[in-house]
Amino acid sequence: QHHQLSQSRCSCIQTIDQLHPSMKISNVKIALKQNFCENVEIIVTLQNGRRKCLNPESEIGKNIINFMESMKKTTKKN
Amino acid sequence: QHHQLSQSRCSCIQTIDQLHPSMKISNVKIALKQNFCENVEIIVTLQNGRRKCLNPESEIGKNIINFMESMKKTTKKN
Repeated sequence: QHHQLSQSRCSCIQTIDQLHPSMKISNVKIALKQNFCENVEIIVTLQNGRRKCLNPESEIGKNIINFMESMKKTTKKN
Repeated sequence: QHHQLSQSRCSCIQTIDQLHPSMKISNVKIALKQNFCENVEIIVTLQNGRRKCLNPESEIGKNIINFMESMKKTTKKN
């Protein structure tokens, strides 16, 4: 199931639910909700330069978002 | 303690060990080890556009790296 988001300025039009083990990851960018895009976006750049968007509602997507939330909380404590 | 890395093509010259609660995060980019930069780099972009590098050896840096490792393992299983 794909996220079609043409009108807002989100980067991710289509998303995937899983990363394939063969995918060599160069970096992962987690974009939090912004005024120009109300979705959390998880953009995986592969070593071959191609980019994949991870579905924030997938299992791996939820893990990433939960982790980001927990990271924010740690900044509040100390 | 700062990481001075002029000769390689790492993005992070200076790093911070903590995020301040007042920092409004726009996105977080985690760059894994590459041939052009042998450090994991954690680049936090704030909503005011400024960028901060998180020290990968800080508490929060280690949490992020451990999480990334665990994410890679989940791709192997399914």
